[in-house]
Amino acid sequence: MTAQQTSLSGTADPRFFTRSGPFDAQALADAAGATLVQPKNAGVLPAFTGIAPLQNAGPNDVSFLDNRRYAHLLEKTQAGLIIIAPAFADKVPAHSAALVSSAPYLAWSRVARLFHPKDPAAPGIHPTAYVDATAQVDSSCEIGPFVVVGPHAEIGPRCIIGSHAVIGQGVQLAADCRIGSHVTLSHAVIGERVIILPGARIGQDGFGFAVGPQGFETVPQLGRVVLEHDVEIGANTTIDRGSVTDTVIGAGSRLDNLVQIGHNAKLGRCCIVVSQAGISGSTVLEDFVTVAAQAGLIGHIRIGAKARIGAQCGVMSDVEGGADVIGSPAMPFREFFRNVAVLRKLAKKASGPAEDGSGK
Amino acid sequence: MTAQQTSLSGTADPRFFTRSGPFDAQALADAAGATLVQPKNAGVLPAFTGIAPLQNAGPNDVSFLDNRRYAHLLEKTQAGLIIIAPAFADKVPAHSAALVSSAPYLAWSRVARLFHPKDPAAPGIHPTAYVDATAQVDSSCEIGPFVVVGPHAEIGPRCIIGSHAVIGQGVQLAADCRIGSHVTLSHAVIGERVIILPGARIGQDGFGFAVGPQGFETVPQLGRVVLEHDVEIGANTTIDRGSVTDTVIGAGSRLDNLVQIGHNAKLGRCCIVVSQAGISGSTVLEDFVTVAAQAGLIGHIRIGAKARIGAQCGVMSDVEGGADVIGSPAMPFREFFRNVAVLRKLAKKASGPAEDGSGK
Amino acid sequence: MTAQQTSLSGTADPRFFTRSGPFDAQALADAAGATLVQPKNAGVLPAFTGIAPLQNAGPNDVSFLDNRRYAHLLEKTQAGLIIIAPAFADKVPAHSAALVSSAPYLAWSRVARLFHPKDPAAPGIHPTAYVDATAQVDSSCEIGPFVVVGPHAEIGPRCIIGSHAVIGQGVQLAADCRIGSHVTLSHAVIGERVIILPGARIGQDGFGFAVGPQGFETVPQLGRVVLEHDVEIGANTTIDRGSVTDTVIGAGSRLDNLVQIGHNAKLGRCCIVVSQAGISGSTVLEDFVTVAAQAGLIGHIRIGAKARIGAQCGVMSDVEGGADVIGSPAMPFREFFRNVAVLRKLAKKASGPAEDGSGK
Repeated sequence: MTAQQTSLSGTADPRFFTRSGPFDAQALADAAGATLVQPKNAGVLPAFTGIAPLQNAGPNDVSFLDNRRYAHLLEKTQAGLIIIAPAFADKVPAHSAALVSSAPYLAWSRVARLFHPKDPAAPGIHPTAYVDATAQVDSSCEIGPFVVVGPHAEIGPRCIIGSHAVIGQGVQLAADCRIGSHVTLSHAVIGERVIILPGARIGQDGFGFAVGPQGFETVPQLGRVVLEHDVEIGANTTIDRGSVTDTVIGAGSRLDNLVQIGHNAKLGRCCIVVSQAGISGSTVLEDFVTVAAQAGLIGHIRIGAKARIGAQCGVMSDVEGGADVIGSPAMPFREFFRNVAVLRKLAKKASGPAEDGSGK
Repeated sequence: MTAQQTSLSGTADPRFFTRSGPFDAQALADAAGATLVQPKNAGVLPAFTGIAPLQNAGPNDVSFLDNRRYAHLLEKTQAGLIIIAPAFADKVPAHSAALVSSAPYLAWSRVARLFHPKDPAAPGIHPTAYVDATAQVDSSCEIGPFVVVGPHAEIGPRCIIGSHAVIGQGVQLAADCRIGSHVTLSHAVIGERVIILPGARIGQDGFGFAVGPQGFETVPQLGRVVLEHDVEIGANTTIDRGSVTDTVIGAGSRLDNLVQIGHNAKLGRCCIVVSQAGISGSTVLEDFVTVAAQAGLIGHIRIGAKARIGAQCGVMSDVEGGADVIGSPAMPFREFFRNVAVLRKLAKKASGPAEDGSGK
Repeated sequence: MTAQQTSLSGTADPRFFTRSGPFDAQALADAAGATLVQPKNAGVLPAFTGIAPLQNAGPNDVSFLDNRRYAHLLEKTQAGLIIIAPAFADKVPAHSAALVSSAPYLAWSRVARLFHPKDPAAPGIHPTAYVDATAQVDSSCEIGPFVVVGPHAEIGPRCIIGSHAVIGQGVQLAADCRIGSHVTLSHAVIGERVIILPGARIGQDGFGFAVGPQGFETVPQLGRVVLEHDVEIGANTTIDRGSVTDTVIGAGSRLDNLVQIGHNAKLGRCCIVVSQAGISGSTVLEDFVTVAAQAGLIGHIRIGAKARIGAQCGVMSDVEGGADVIGSPAMPFREFFRNVAVLRKLAKKASGPAEDGSGK
């Protein structure tokens, strides 16, 4: 088997994705909030049956361009309808219609969702699941195989709990949450529409211990984890519960895979934390902070609203709101890249022939 | 739902934590090994019913100050009793008693444990668990739902095995271990009082292969994992078994979440490895080594006793006992920060107006 | 319990590993593709019963030397037979025979596999497993306790599915795969002989969202994960499915533990990705690329064939085939270490007494 052999002519393999439609171009334009532009040299538009990337799309597919890196794919695409920014609209082939939008990725998102809506909960508790007699599970919930729901846990309407997930004692989930397979939830209070991908660990003991005469002594971790409305948590991510206050992930924030959040950390609204980043205990992120992949923040610091922490950045002190920092230790983007350039120049001078500029 | 709406007046939400007490101040002083100092302007001390952070504590709560960053919280706290270091004792409000200790975090740990002792094992094997007929499980153990205990595994007295955990063939656990949900244990020998948080993977194949004529060939991994007494392992951490010797985590060592330990690595006693750090195969840590978050150590090196490896450090060669290193490649702390300062200065000089010092 | 108390005289604890043999030296030489050299001062060679590291091996054990760091162990070893490179053959003790090979690690791998062959699948579906009525599971498969096999999933001959693994709806596994405990597979097409270690998450939603008027809006992730033949995936590693194309791991590639692979990434044949490294969305690795531990690659870049990305490297742009890069941002190995040396020298000059060279 090779990638070649398994590639698809379109996308959205029907083994995995159910499909709605077909839709006509104007319905798609309406869903996308985009302007429909007819093809230059074609007649009546067909009904559109699905979505596909530019290189695979056919006349009945909707495709999109969001990244100028891939603009060359426009030349050869057979896509019948292309979602595109105004700047590229004149590059659309003559046989293709366009949905022109100043937010093409958002438009794409909505069109894709129209063709492939989320499956709703299929109410019922799988016969292999173990639900404690004192737990309250709304009758509209879908509880998968081998799920454990502990004593006094509460699960709100239309939640979907994936196979083998553990909803610990007293945990509270509001409506419309989707909890992936193998997720562990303990000591946690979860808002509405929260999504947690497989294998995430939420609410276990934080890393707290004191040095005693006989070795380390564990400090009891007596706080909780609070995930506010619309939070999304990636696969195998770990969020420790607070030690004396709560660990809080603010409404609308999104954490990627393999992220670590230490005890008592507080993330504001709509923060983004990309994969393998780590936020140490008691650190505070104000609203709209972005932490890129593999960045690390020490404990007990504050990151101001809308700050952006670059990939692999090591943050050892507070960051002002709106700042862009990178490097380890963290510094402004401009300073970091200036340092890199200056060091390269100095190193060339030190090691190569200095006068003629040929030193590499 | 917002953090505001879900915050608590005290701590230790009774949905999640059982509580002992109340306790009088002298009993708490005794447990903490601290000196009780009566409040300046109050009468008889109340019985204390719980613990809480300074900002939330009331007159019947015990609180603590361990980090000078939060000393300003003393001004407004209503806590009845505050665990505190001698240096801050005079900052305790007049209405509060104090437990003065030269090790306030340790004292806090013990007071918190007094109010919230660990739940003991509730003996019994859950009816949904699958225990092989040849396994030996002590009758005092608590075996959770959907646990698998493999052939010839041995589980000592008072162990608690969380739901869905897998205790593989031949694995041996000594007394009083606590194994979290979804933990996988194979090819492992585990000491007493070992704690493993949810999702940790212990004993799987190491990353070993040779280049053969047709591609990579897997090298059989024929060692084990040995976790000595009192080891603690974080959530979703991975510890590969040895290839020809054992992978060993020394007594009392603590690993945080998402840590990677390669095959044949040996950690001494009371080592600390913080989240997302990685230790490559066959590397040796002597006793009391600290590896901070996101640090990485290459294979086949030795880290001397009491060395401290800073966050995000990249260690490519041996480190002497007692050394403090940081940076990638690793260097002494002083050298690292000197380099940072010098480069910043050189870069400013290279890019800005040099004479008047105004260059930014 | 200490490491001392639990160490073994040989290796391959029989509680965990079954053993074949004994084998005579010539049979081992044949398996290894190595040349048998008789011991200088010994008589008839014994039958060999197992393998062990040099420091523990006895006269009936086979051992090996692959790393010159450990060459001093040859002096005291009691091993009866030692697999070794020609360069060290004259260091073999007089009482030991040798298997001389120009590829000693590969030779070792084959000898170790001879003594400890992989256990074959023990056909059968565990009575606690839940297999959907529409799934197709070959009768030669071994399906462990509490496994879930979803609707229309297909599992080929001789696959072994570990306890609690989830094979999602429509997922296809070809012959001879070994899926570890607690693995989650969804939206995936898997080749032959693929090995996935415990806790890996394959096929979940990628990290894709657009900024809408009310906050982030999830972009449907409509691609798949394709793992080609002979791929191996480490414990707790996460591979997101594609958004519009597939995420592909090429034939023979090996990923270590805690690795992150973003949506639409394409890895070629025989790539190596070491633990805790991360590859962002839509990035392409050509064949035989190595990514060392904790390295991070941004999205939408291309890494040429046989390039080597160093540990903790931060790759922000394309890398040419065959290049060796390290540092963050990535640069050629030589340049990186030259920069380090030059900065150290400049920093010493700036801070210490410059004239006499004594400045440290």
